[in-house]
Amino acid sequence: MRTIDWVDGAIELVDQTRLPDEYVTVRISTVDELIDAIRRLAVRGAPALGVAGALGVVLAGDDQDAIARLRAARPTAVNLAWGVDQAAAWLRQGPEAVLETALRIRDEDIAACVAMGERGADLLEGDRLRIMTLCNTGGLAAVERGTALGVVQTLHERGRMAEVLALETRPLLQGARLTTWELGRMGVPHRLVADSAGPYLLARGGVDAVLIGADRIAANGDTANKIGSYSLALGAQRAGVPFYVVAPETTIDFATPTGEQIEIEDRGPAEVVTIRGVRLTPEGTDAANPAFDVTPHDLITAIITDKRVIRP
Amino acid sequence: MRTIDWVDGAIELVDQTRLPDEYVTVRISTVDELIDAIRRLAVRGAPALGVAGALGVVLAGDDQDAIARLRAARPTAVNLAWGVDQAAAWLRQGPEAVLETALRIRDEDIAACVAMGERGADLLEGDRLRIMTLCNTGGLAAVERGTALGVVQTLHERGRMAEVLALETRPLLQGARLTTWELGRMGVPHRLVADSAGPYLLARGGVDAVLIGADRIAANGDTANKIGSYSLALGAQRAGVPFYVVAPETTIDFATPTGEQIEIEDRGPAEVVTIRGVRLTPEGTDAANPAFDVTPHDLITAIITDKRVIRP
Repeated sequence: MRTIDWVDGAIELVDQTRLPDEYVTVRISTVDELIDAIRRLAVRGAPALGVAGALGVVLAGDDQDAIARLRAARPTAVNLAWGVDQAAAWLRQGPEAVLETALRIRDEDIAACVAMGERGADLLEGDRLRIMTLCNTGGLAAVERGTALGVVQTLHERGRMAEVLALETRPLLQGARLTTWELGRMGVPHRLVADSAGPYLLARGGVDAVLIGADRIAANGDTANKIGSYSLALGAQRAGVPFYVVAPETTIDFATPTGEQIEIEDRGPAEVVTIRGVRLTPEGTDAANPAFDVTPHDLITAIITDKRVIRP
Repeated sequence: MRTIDWVDGAIELVDQTRLPDEYVTVRISTVDELIDAIRRLAVRGAPALGVAGALGVVLAGDDQDAIARLRAARPTAVNLAWGVDQAAAWLRQGPEAVLETALRIRDEDIAACVAMGERGADLLEGDRLRIMTLCNTGGLAAVERGTALGVVQTLHERGRMAEVLALETRPLLQGARLTTWELGRMGVPHRLVADSAGPYLLARGGVDAVLIGADRIAANGDTANKIGSYSLALGAQRAGVPFYVVAPETTIDFATPTGEQIEIEDRGPAEVVTIRGVRLTPEGTDAANPAFDVTPHDLITAIITDKRVIRP
């Protein structure tokens, strides 16, 4: 299975808003459909957004306005803009060159995730590993295998995984909906936990490492990732548990010196005051909804990429 | 309005599982009904549980088995066992003496919450305060006014509140359901936030203090409170934001030397894998569900009680 691919002249992607209830693939033939899919998180995850951005340029052709709107559909993940730029650079060479570039980005993502999985599994020590993770960083966040959850998958294939503690990841519950679904398919034992229980479970002991993905890594190593990453990093530091970021080199944004310059998307109150359509609060309740946070580099043990291990 | 009271020979309490959708009072005439109400969190909050425990002994009469079961209905909050013990000590003097003791505990809670509100409001500096809080510590957690939210209420009456950032408090969403409801009735501006966003919003600046309640305070100041308190304390420390615990003296358990000896209730997976009846995960997903955590005393700026300010 591929989370996103180019099939018979259109993008096909798994509609992740329907999981875990249904596994549904949708075909996307226009940039507006793709922007909508990105905004409602039908496709999500930094690596998958890179591929979506590149394939989206194939759909856009010469429409520079459409390309600009696609590039800005989600501001925090650098990979989306990167994928758009990579493909758009070939526009003058014609549509075949653009498609070829987009397919190369897809294939490079597949290879990068394999490399990250192996490098991460080589780096971690121990045989009966208990890993805590946040959000979804599995195959659903990339093309075939994932980033942080790709490391878990490789560890599991090597017979070294004991359990994953998966944080549910409010507000949109990618951990509860998607990570549990992927771990179930992999056959990795796992338990779900409320996000706020993560730091406490680290303090209680028994977790060997925290592994997360990244949406943008600043030049100094500060890392923007799903909201909750920062509190988990604080908990890991206090508990003395190693805290690893797993992301392809393309997530490193050398144009952004530190985390302070990273724009953090606020997705509005609706996602917080309801859960899967059920209202939680009195009518009219407002909410702050930062979708990401920034973990300062001093809280990060290492960044594992497809090329190297960086110790910020 | 009183959250819990003794009316015409029975306990009357607000069924908090129905809020914010409906405000419903239930009458409770037997210990088993009361234990059920406590377990399903129809009545909750350390001070309210103290009153419930004492009034429950009135219902129990001489039934020592019922008293023991009531005392153990929830293990973490010390107030429940304390309220049971206070009332049960008068059993030999007859039912009137037990009832009188229980009503005295109710009245003392009302007075203690007034005192905590004033002491807290005196302690905090500033005129346009932005306060972050977790769970529900308002009148619904006590009898008339609350603990941490009682301080907010007093600050608001003094014209000093700008905004409350209320953490939603997964899994049972006491912040989303109850705190927003109480703040709306008070007329205090507020926004809801996902629990994992709390530490990050502290790091971004603009929050003057974190105020939480407590379920049990060990002799050294380590504080058991709703899951998520610890990660908020880590975030407050890193951001240099004062972190206050507001609780009556009766929540201090001198028989427990440190937080390590506090039993933390695990409430089972169902609360995590569903939200208000809606399943979030694939069928059969397991979960860890610690209902409380322990914040070490070094992360606590001060404990505000009805009698004093303790700096652990």
